[in-house]
Amino acid sequence: MDKSSPRSDLQRIFAPQSVAVIGASTRPESVGRAVFSNVLRYDYTGVVYPVNPKARSIMGVRAYTSVLAIPDPVDLAVIIVPSDGVAHTLEECGRKGIKGAIVITAGFKELGGEGIQKEAAVRDAARRSGIPLLGPNCLGIINTDPQVSLNASFSRLMPRSGNIALISQSGAVGTAALEYAQSERIGLSKFVSVGNKADLSENDFLAYLLEDPQTEVILLYLEDLTEPRRFFQLAEGSSPRKPILAIKSGRTAAGAKAASSHTGALAGSDAAYDALFAQCGVFRVESLEELFDYAVAFATQPLPQGNRAAIVTNAGGLGIMATDAAVRYGLTMADFEKETTARLKESLPPAANLHNPVDVLGDASEERYAAALERVLADAGVDGAIVISTPQLMTNLAAIAQAVTRVAAQHQKPTLVCQMALGEIEETLTILSQGGLPHYHFPEEAARALAAMARYARSLARPLYEVKTFDDVDRQEVREVFAGVRKAGRSFVLEPEAHRIFAAYGFPVLPHSWVHSAGEAARAGEALGYPVAVKIVSPDIVHKFEVGGVKVQLHNAEEVRRAYDQVQENAGKSRPQAALAGALVQKMAAPGTEMILGMTRDPHFGPLLMIGLGGTLVEIFKDVVFSVAPISEQWARQMIEDLKAFPLLNGYRGEPPGDLETIADCLERLSQLALDFPEIRELDINPLLVVPRGQGATVVDARIFIG
Amino acid sequence: MDKSSPRSDLQRIFAPQSVAVIGASTRPESVGRAVFSNVLRYDYTGVVYPVNPKARSIMGVRAYTSVLAIPDPVDLAVIIVPSDGVAHTLEECGRKGIKGAIVITAGFKELGGEGIQKEAAVRDAARRSGIPLLGPNCLGIINTDPQVSLNASFSRLMPRSGNIALISQSGAVGTAALEYAQSERIGLSKFVSVGNKADLSENDFLAYLLEDPQTEVILLYLEDLTEPRRFFQLAEGSSPRKPILAIKSGRTAAGAKAASSHTGALAGSDAAYDALFAQCGVFRVESLEELFDYAVAFATQPLPQGNRAAIVTNAGGLGIMATDAAVRYGLTMADFEKETTARLKESLPPAANLHNPVDVLGDASEERYAAALERVLADAGVDGAIVISTPQLMTNLAAIAQAVTRVAAQHQKPTLVCQMALGEIEETLTILSQGGLPHYHFPEEAARALAAMARYARSLARPLYEVKTFDDVDRQEVREVFAGVRKAGRSFVLEPEAHRIFAAYGFPVLPHSWVHSAGEAARAGEALGYPVAVKIVSPDIVHKFEVGGVKVQLHNAEEVRRAYDQVQENAGKSRPQAALAGALVQKMAAPGTEMILGMTRDPHFGPLLMIGLGGTLVEIFKDVVFSVAPISEQWARQMIEDLKAFPLLNGYRGEPPGDLETIADCLERLSQLALDFPEIRELDINPLLVVPRGQGATVVDARIFIG
Repeated sequence: MDKSSPRSDLQRIFAPQSVAVIGASTRPESVGRAVFSNVLRYDYTGVVYPVNPKARSIMGVRAYTSVLAIPDPVDLAVIIVPSDGVAHTLEECGRKGIKGAIVITAGFKELGGEGIQKEAAVRDAARRSGIPLLGPNCLGIINTDPQVSLNASFSRLMPRSGNIALISQSGAVGTAALEYAQSERIGLSKFVSVGNKADLSENDFLAYLLEDPQTEVILLYLEDLTEPRRFFQLAEGSSPRKPILAIKSGRTAAGAKAASSHTGALAGSDAAYDALFAQCGVFRVESLEELFDYAVAFATQPLPQGNRAAIVTNAGGLGIMATDAAVRYGLTMADFEKETTARLKESLPPAANLHNPVDVLGDASEERYAAALERVLADAGVDGAIVISTPQLMTNLAAIAQAVTRVAAQHQKPTLVCQMALGEIEETLTILSQGGLPHYHFPEEAARALAAMARYARSLARPLYEVKTFDDVDRQEVREVFAGVRKAGRSFVLEPEAHRIFAAYGFPVLPHSWVHSAGEAARAGEALGYPVAVKIVSPDIVHKFEVGGVKVQLHNAEEVRRAYDQVQENAGKSRPQAALAGALVQKMAAPGTEMILGMTRDPHFGPLLMIGLGGTLVEIFKDVVFSVAPISEQWARQMIEDLKAFPLLNGYRGEPPGDLETIADCLERLSQLALDFPEIRELDINPLLVVPRGQGATVVDARIFIG
Repeated sequence: MDKSSPRSDLQRIFAPQSVAVIGASTRPESVGRAVFSNVLRYDYTGVVYPVNPKARSIMGVRAYTSVLAIPDPVDLAVIIVPSDGVAHTLEECGRKGIKGAIVITAGFKELGGEGIQKEAAVRDAARRSGIPLLGPNCLGIINTDPQVSLNASFSRLMPRSGNIALISQSGAVGTAALEYAQSERIGLSKFVSVGNKADLSENDFLAYLLEDPQTEVILLYLEDLTEPRRFFQLAEGSSPRKPILAIKSGRTAAGAKAASSHTGALAGSDAAYDALFAQCGVFRVESLEELFDYAVAFATQPLPQGNRAAIVTNAGGLGIMATDAAVRYGLTMADFEKETTARLKESLPPAANLHNPVDVLGDASEERYAAALERVLADAGVDGAIVISTPQLMTNLAAIAQAVTRVAAQHQKPTLVCQMALGEIEETLTILSQGGLPHYHFPEEAARALAAMARYARSLARPLYEVKTFDDVDRQEVREVFAGVRKAGRSFVLEPEAHRIFAAYGFPVLPHSWVHSAGEAARAGEALGYPVAVKIVSPDIVHKFEVGGVKVQLHNAEEVRRAYDQVQENAGKSRPQAALAGALVQKMAAPGTEMILGMTRDPHFGPLLMIGLGGTLVEIFKDVVFSVAPISEQWARQMIEDLKAFPLLNGYRGEPPGDLETIADCLERLSQLALDFPEIRELDINPLLVVPRGQGATVVDARIFIG
């Protein structure tokens, strides 16, 4: 399909003037009946035509034997015919001039084998007929816009109208999500189950929803991404930003295995998904509960200006638990202004706690809640509030919900509510949902949601993702090196070759010389200046240290000469079959902090960049950060700061801070190198020695594999 | 109260033959009315007497002007009179021969000031009268045992009967917990709100509940522990073990501040609570949701024999999410036996996933669920199962719940259920709760609960907590050293003194000599054998390195002599006011891994032991483990294994493993030293140098403060 105008294309699917339900049925429990009944019974504002070769009518509506028999124009076809008939049906739809199709029928790619070919035939039929196609093997779509009111799915319910859209790659997860949203009084704008994504993918719907005026928050349940790069561009480029929250299941190895047996999709590595989402500002969450907990806050409340939370509670114990949770999730507890404490003192009884968390006491009325919340939200040091009520003796939860709604409406600060009750909660939920306040069953959930808002608000403050292109690079030089490597029939790039590549791309490499005799080595030592290191060069030796192939701290020609002979001898002894290609004489680097920069090429995402500190402890603590290329300068800095060991680089305990600018520069250059040369399969710089700020860093050793 | 027989004492509170509600009232919304009404309306099997100086009757029951006016014997008094009258009322109760009292009235210690004295008066009155007292400032107690059926609280509801007991230090948290349990159909055996703990504390109730035949799982909400050591003994010593799950709020600094302003309690450090709970097998959780999620699994299901989970689902997507969660929480996904897969193949349609997670497909009937669960639970490689259903077109959730209940009953393996639906969930909850299966709203919660069971089962497998007493220690030597330190008016123990102490307690100290001249230093060097180190000794210099007070790797008498003069000179220069007391000549240790052992004395918990690796990175990663003393040998090993950097000690990448036995031995000796000498305020061994297994470890440097 033409990807330039998602809105006009998908409008025929989400807001058709007329719908043909092909395969509509009267058989109880059948999908054909469920879909037709859903279109009919939820006040669709257009015209629906059942198509069934044998029935005169379906649920009292005049039926047609074929879509071609419908006398009026039709915008959308919803297809539930057996899988073998889908391609033919799509051809008829094409002849009918239909502009969009939803294939609900299952039995395609998800079965493997023959199903894969069947799906290809369906896609081809749709493309030949110029019909954008959703599915197959999906639940359908729902549009709650009262102007349309279309439930073209076999969901058991019609969600209430709202400003949250949901795209689900799993029909059943979609169902579970719709059930949950309904039980929590959460309204949706659109729902789409993307199924097997034969034609339209999450990207098409994301593009549509980003421009959809009814949608303010977008939720995704994904098992893979069809085109990561397009997803990135859509999510990153949307303006003004709509919060996008995503579950990507298959995070663990066992989960990924389950996902691949479920969908047959070979998804990229989870580290790549994590990185991609973070880089384009998509908020990744782990569960449906989190997804909706956050969505309802984003959909109803303004973003906080910072992460200073206030808590108002009628139960001290829950105030403490909420405080623990707030801090655990990254909020700080606001310090009230003197004025606030003074005015709280006027409004609250003597036993109340006037500090944060504010305890309005067990017998608190709605007025007391209103007064406390008013004071607290007026405090310039408060960025958002959580209001907790438990049912105590005189507690009127509904009245409190009403009072809180009224006060919150007067402030541009997020206010989240938690009422821990059984009886009156129905009424409370109605009041809060009408008043546009999010409700949580537990204070921890409210704290987590407010923390998510603060984190998202902070990520919005980041400058645009502008990727720099370095012009001071010598592509021709790199091409020549690779040509030589290929000509030699190798995939392993020798260290001197690797240094040539890094030098060509502006990395800070050490002065070095590739020598082929002890005498040449000694002369190189003299020319470079001491101390130097001597390292074996061999196409067959990747791990030089293991074979005794490295000598360091050599201070004169004699030591260098001896070192050359020794590394040759050692390598020859431990790897008698290895071809030897001389040695690298390299000036010793100034001591510094050892870092590792790396790149692996993910089959799905392309280059995945990595940074970490060197050393055993870092390995044990798994302290590495990944990103997908390309990266902006800002993001390169972010990667460094995201290392748990970052404090060590940033001047720990009075040590001078490391040269973060140079590290970031190396990361950006690495990103460009990886994108410029798709033949680089894997690469690492280990170590990159980092010295104090302003003094740079140096590539000491490096490995490159092409393929 | 007499602590030897909790059961008989508290039996009068939980299962009285007769109850006087003193302060019973007819005033609407009053606590006095709520409590009386609760006793009356929930089928209490004893006799209840309202006491009210002015009323003829309360809710139709004949009232008495004073407890002394009641013509029959009374076991329990529930007191709701104003705070000023409580002490007097208790005296009357004593005269009446009452054997237990619950003071619900608030307005005591929690107000501070005068309230503190008032509470002391109440406690004294109770003790003088020999009445065990619960409260004041509490919600009361509930006993759902049908033989008793007593709700002596002002809770708004009577929980259903079950085998979970709850002790809450916060009335409002207790209320919230009761509401939540009710909404989830979770039954309780006993509920007690401990309030201000003037007399009876959580320990008394814990002791009672550990012996209570109706209680199989004990839940605690705590803001502090009254007597940590007694708690430890109760929890650790109970046999057979009943699972104890605890929330201790105030985990974060902000939360602890909120807690202290709420209860006035000065709780110990959170690290101490964490350690104590872990050491005595109490399962610490963070939220009420977690508390009940786990409780209902522990209360209804057998413990798993291992952590291999199976998942059965009708929704592939949720299977993946559950798998991710299972692995995240520490379970592994079971690998099915061939037999299982083969038999699943017979029972399930071709498109089903026969591997774990088993996907029985969207149209799965209850029979298909039953068949799949049966096969899976019969697999010897499966320790527990999670069954997930979403409402799809032909799904009968209630029938599935029934089938799962039936199959699970035939296997001794925990089975947890998650039905993600709105409509039929009420029926499902009833079926599952009657069938004794726990239900979760989200697959993640089910996975987390099963993981908690596996973790708990593993902790039960630990040998008994047997604390060794070392007899090879020389207490007299230590006493002498401390006498000397005190006599010198110091709190800082000099390094040579510290080494004397460690030597007396059997720690591996290095050969050393305390010298007072360069000549003496040189002679000591000769005697000890080279290389040696020379370190300044001064009561005023704690950080020797900072003043240039340490010289290492000295190889002959001349170097030692020079080093002695240098450290004296350096110390004199940088701390001209410092008194100098010669130097320590110490044999150099063999190189090894640097560890830190430490002890601080928590005012509430006593000695808190600490272990960590040395070095900056470990500081940044905060990789330290705490325990309260005393520790068993097993626990000392556990502390070492709990270090994130443990792999480094255990033979990382082919390195020889460190001498873990010696580290554990040092920890145990440290525990004994700290308990034997309460005057030790703070102590650290930094570093303890650890060498390969069998070769020991050495105390290189140490600091001790007494006070």
